[in-house]
Amino acid sequence: MAEEVLRLLAESDQSLAVAESLTGGMVAAELTAVPGASRSFRGSVTAYATELKHRVLGVDAGLLAAEGAVNAQVAAEMAGGVRRVMGATWGIATTGVAGPDPQDGQPVGTVFIAVAGPGGRKTARLRLNGSRTEIRRESARTVLELLSSELRENLRGQDTEQNGGI
Amino acid sequence: MAEEVLRLLAESDQSLAVAESLTGGMVAAELTAVPGASRSFRGSVTAYATELKHRVLGVDAGLLAAEGAVNAQVAAEMAGGVRRVMGATWGIATTGVAGPDPQDGQPVGTVFIAVAGPGGRKTARLRLNGSRTEIRRESARTVLELLSSELRENLRGQDTEQNGGI
Repeated sequence: MAEEVLRLLAESDQSLAVAESLTGGMVAAELTAVPGASRSFRGSVTAYATELKHRVLGVDAGLLAAEGAVNAQVAAEMAGGVRRVMGATWGIATTGVAGPDPQDGQPVGTVFIAVAGPGGRKTARLRLNGSRTEIRRESARTVLELLSSELRENLRGQDTEQNGGI
Repeated sequence: MAEEVLRLLAESDQSLAVAESLTGGMVAAELTAVPGASRSFRGSVTAYATELKHRVLGVDAGLLAAEGAVNAQVAAEMAGGVRRVMGATWGIATTGVAGPDPQDGQPVGTVFIAVAGPGGRKTARLRLNGSRTEIRRESARTVLELLSSELRENLRGQDTEQNGGI
């Protein structure tokens, strides 16, 4: 999935930045495992401490205090924040509970992912089962899948525009 | 090695932030694979695009322009920068050439790692062989080893101080 995302980005001359919480570097590591990733991958922030989601990524501090770090709005603001901070076309984000303990009142396996791009933001809620490692891996896989789907939709939209619409 | 580093940090109530270039998230991912990592691990920045080493981590722009991103001074400033940006006791950093192509006039396998802590900064130059994956893995392993050695030295120093010196 990392190869496909990087191919779609390179073909359209677009760039990507990543904000991670529970995946803690795994999404960035998967992307940078691909030779030539630097063509489109700008960088990532792992904001593991809740405070850094505000301090580095600009997530609303009141939201974090009131709702905690595990919700759709935080995921959306992380994706939008890293996109802005790193000057990328697209930003993606993960936040959730990998375990072993619940967090912010959410059970283990609750995960929110987000994509922020030129046309706005999209989020999804996942309810995952399995070990800490499985929950982290599945979260990383799914956020790249969501981005791939958004990139394809965005490219189709551009083709339609170039062809004068339907 | 990640478990040992996290144990040493937790025992001394100290925290860690990570700045990555060629390892691209692998160091952070190894640390966050350990349950309870949030006790001491604050977060990480993958500054893959050279410009972000300045923009996010505060590495001197003139240095990057004159010497490129693959040298000891850049590694030291990345480690110091992420330590400051994330408010951690310790910062560690990796920069180098994972391949397949040379970069900034340096051959594949040239890697610089750094540790920044309360007592200053330390860097090391590595000359690694192997595949892109092997070079990245060995860089990640070695920077954690350097940190572990610095943490032990720092803790011994504290014990000595507490005992009134020798």
